[in-house]
Amino acid sequence: MIGIFDSGIGGLTVLKEIARRFPALDILYLGDTARVPYGTKSPETVVRYSFEAAHFLGKHGIELLVVACNTSSALALEALERELPIPVIGVIRPGAQRAAGATKSGRIGVIGTPATIKSGAYARALAAAAKAATPAPSALTIFSTTCPLFVPLAEEGWTDNTVARETARLYLEPLARERIDTLVLGCTHYPILSGVIGEVMGETVTLVDSAVAVADEVGARLRVLGRDPAAGGGSRRFFVTDSWERFLEVGARFLGHPIDRLEQVSIVGE
Amino acid sequence: MIGIFDSGIGGLTVLKEIARRFPALDILYLGDTARVPYGTKSPETVVRYSFEAAHFLGKHGIELLVVACNTSSALALEALERELPIPVIGVIRPGAQRAAGATKSGRIGVIGTPATIKSGAYARALAAAAKAATPAPSALTIFSTTCPLFVPLAEEGWTDNTVARETARLYLEPLARERIDTLVLGCTHYPILSGVIGEVMGETVTLVDSAVAVADEVGARLRVLGRDPAAGGGSRRFFVTDSWERFLEVGARFLGHPIDRLEQVSIVGE
Repeated sequence: MIGIFDSGIGGLTVLKEIARRFPALDILYLGDTARVPYGTKSPETVVRYSFEAAHFLGKHGIELLVVACNTSSALALEALERELPIPVIGVIRPGAQRAAGATKSGRIGVIGTPATIKSGAYARALAAAAKAATPAPSALTIFSTTCPLFVPLAEEGWTDNTVARETARLYLEPLARERIDTLVLGCTHYPILSGVIGEVMGETVTLVDSAVAVADEVGARLRVLGRDPAAGGGSRRFFVTDSWERFLEVGARFLGHPIDRLEQVSIVGE
Repeated sequence: MIGIFDSGIGGLTVLKEIARRFPALDILYLGDTARVPYGTKSPETVVRYSFEAAHFLGKHGIELLVVACNTSSALALEALERELPIPVIGVIRPGAQRAAGATKSGRIGVIGTPATIKSGAYARALAAAAKAATPAPSALTIFSTTCPLFVPLAEEGWTDNTVARETARLYLEPLARERIDTLVLGCTHYPILSGVIGEVMGETVTLVDSAVAVADEVGARLRVLGRDPAAGGGSRRFFVTDSWERFLEVGARFLGHPIDRLEQVSIVGE
């Protein structure tokens, strides 16, 4: 059994990809909806919240933790890896590795929330991944931009209308002009908008969805533990810390199917 | 001296209007940016946060409190009025009174965040205001809709481009078809978008900005206290509980001038 946590609902795109790849895997999902968003909180607060989420899921017997929140992956992953007795996978490193392996020109774009971009975590992870990649890409040039409206657009379900298309054009045309060949979708909400993002960037640009890379990593790490990611009862449990109505509504859109059952819990002080 | 509090930054549109009307009035502003948004929190939590904000401002010697947060006005105003020793003004009742006075047909639209609309607070306040209005409007018919993308659009500063215009059209055309004659901007962010909102609704629809009504009420209540709202040193102090960088940037846009100085404070347990 694995656990996935996110500050809110975006991590469901990660769950969806893991569940698509490993349908029999038992999965717990925790969305800390009472305290979303993490992106505006101080680093100390994000670390504390991340440990509370990890301890809550740990009590339910997970064998591996996926931190499906970019802010938490940027600020708390090292501490979690150091202190938890189970493997921890964030969303930044797997996405960066995939991008470093995909680029030919070394010109990579990264889009994310203001907090993620400001943290510089993707730039660092891309540099590290480029060094380790075979063949190593030529010198990396990284172009970052924030797309604050993408999250509310994805949650509103406006993914294929004039507003979504025009928003994508305004945010992304500067990146397209830089002739990048790879674009990292550095926020778990963004794959919902990959259609209009792809339209603006054109077919020559590879879109890197971290969720796909995370699913690969989950399979690999479970096998290292001697577990078969293809085995299990295929159970799903969803926990939120507040505001479950919106989670049900938006979550069904993100997953592509309804959420049967949602449990509201308190994780403060876990 | 008066105090204004909001869960975040939207209340600055209320401050701006009060300061425009009473430039010499001394004003404290508190944005609870560490815990924004309130709209997804439980009612008990919103009441607790509102009292913490009120007590913090109370210690600084305010004589009147403006609750410039729709969620807090909907959920905590009665308790604050009952327990605080100073007058408390919310944003819902003044806006509703102005709308009830402005409508001729009795067909009123209300737009707000999902939490505000769901609370039904505007519908109740409009019904009460209509009863008290002279002349009382004919039977009220209220049409409500939520506009979740308006807040991020306002914060992004996209107020006059294709995205803003098309978003306004998608949200508001159903209201326009209902032939309302008055539209309440039931969220402190929305006046920032009044240009495109007015374009969609047309000249025959009166837009009611609660901030204007709140400023009227502030003047009236201060006079009842024997204070002259036109007197004072014109000082402004801004407090936030977290994430001051974004507050400075977006706040300057909302106010129309830079914020000279911002103080980060903790109000937990006040």
